Amino acid sequence: MADTSALNALIQGLRRLPGVGVKSASRMAFHLLQHDREGAQMLAQALMQAAGNVKHCALCHTFTEADICDTCQDESRDASKLCVVENPADQSAVERTAAYKGLYFVLMGKISPLDGVGPKDIGLQKLIDRASNGLVQEVILATNFTAEGEATAHVISVALKARGLQVTRLARGVPVGSELEYVDLGTIAHAFVDRR
Amino acid sequence: MADTSALNALIQGLRRLPGVGVKSASRMAFHLLQHDREGAQMLAQALMQAAGNVKHCALCHTFTEADICDTCQDESRDASKLCVVENPADQSAVERTAAYKGLYFVLMGKISPLDGVGPKDIGLQKLIDRASNGLVQEVILATNFTAEGEATAHVISVALKARGLQVTRLARGVPVGSELEYVDLGTIAHAFVDRR
Ligand SMILES: [Zn+2]
Ligand SMILES: [Zn+2]
Repeated sequence: MADTSALNALIQGLRRLPGVGVKSASRMAFHLLQHDREGAQMLAQALMQAAGNVKHCALCHTFTEADICDTCQDESRDASKLCVVENPADQSAVERTAAYKGLYFVLMGKISPLDGVGPKDIGLQKLIDRASNGLVQEVILATNFTAEGEATAHVISVALKARGLQVTRLARGVPVGSELEYVDLGTIAHAFVDRR
Repeated sequence: MADTSALNALIQGLRRLPGVGVKSASRMAFHLLQHDREGAQMLAQALMQAAGNVKHCALCHTFTEADICDTCQDESRDASKLCVVENPADQSAVERTAAYKGLYFVLMGKISPLDGVGPKDIGLQKLIDRASNGLVQEVILATNFTAEGEATAHVISVALKARGLQVTRLARGVPVGSELEYVDLGTIAHAFVDRR
């Protein structure tokens, strides 16, 4: 594709994005170079900023640039409830329902034996410590209703119940086999009310 | 989505890529921050390098980091033939057939009245100058066989024939309505032989 190593490096760089093959990467590179060099520079700076500054909240593990995220610092939230989600997109979906005013723990993943992701990789001990702070009275498992999400919920449930904590699961109003971030808000809200 | 302006800026930056909506951009951003910060930094550097260094070949208009691209500098190529393509991906598809050993002119676009892209925007005058250098004996139009590609070929053909140049078009071996970069190499090679 022409004789430009910078162009080839850009195409290779774009292929690091999930779901982007060599054809898509080429089209993206041509588009940026031909029509949107300003966008290319904006994206480059955003990548450097984010890769350098975004870390994990010390309490809930979600992405934040501070030590503690805004949600965890919000004193108006109900500290007796802790909602466990797989990732920030799921957390965002729950937030948009406005059906929940407690706090969160974001696993940043799910247990997946086939991919070698075990309880340690989703911060199970950190979650246990968080749920055992004396304030949390109910842990609501809002992992996805996929096989891996259910397995993750099961492992967490066993570990927390062994420590005497009350553990609930979102009701099956959420369609089985689907991922939270694609579910309509009404369904998620209903599932919150019916949690078991 | 959490309280991180760097994350939001990254999602907005990724949305500048063609075909990437807010859901895809979020997934890309999470993936990079969670699993591939090295990839994020590589992509950032590749974007800066490419946006800063890639320019257009003075002769054929394709992307290059030099003033003249490698293909145009290659003295083993047949300077009596000039193949006109819409973009570097199409040029690359023609190269892979190994059915053509002449030179190229890359329009970096196509005439598209609905998008306000006219003959000036595809460098028609530059192409006329290039084809009138005394060496070129045949201009082969290899624009895509779409409505816009055909219109582009027509405009170029009229302009070049008015100046006494021999103009041919790839044979209809290329399926109508398709774009070159997605066509199998045999079909493109055959179309080269049957050019009219
Ligand atoms: Zn937090
Ligand atoms: Zn060139």
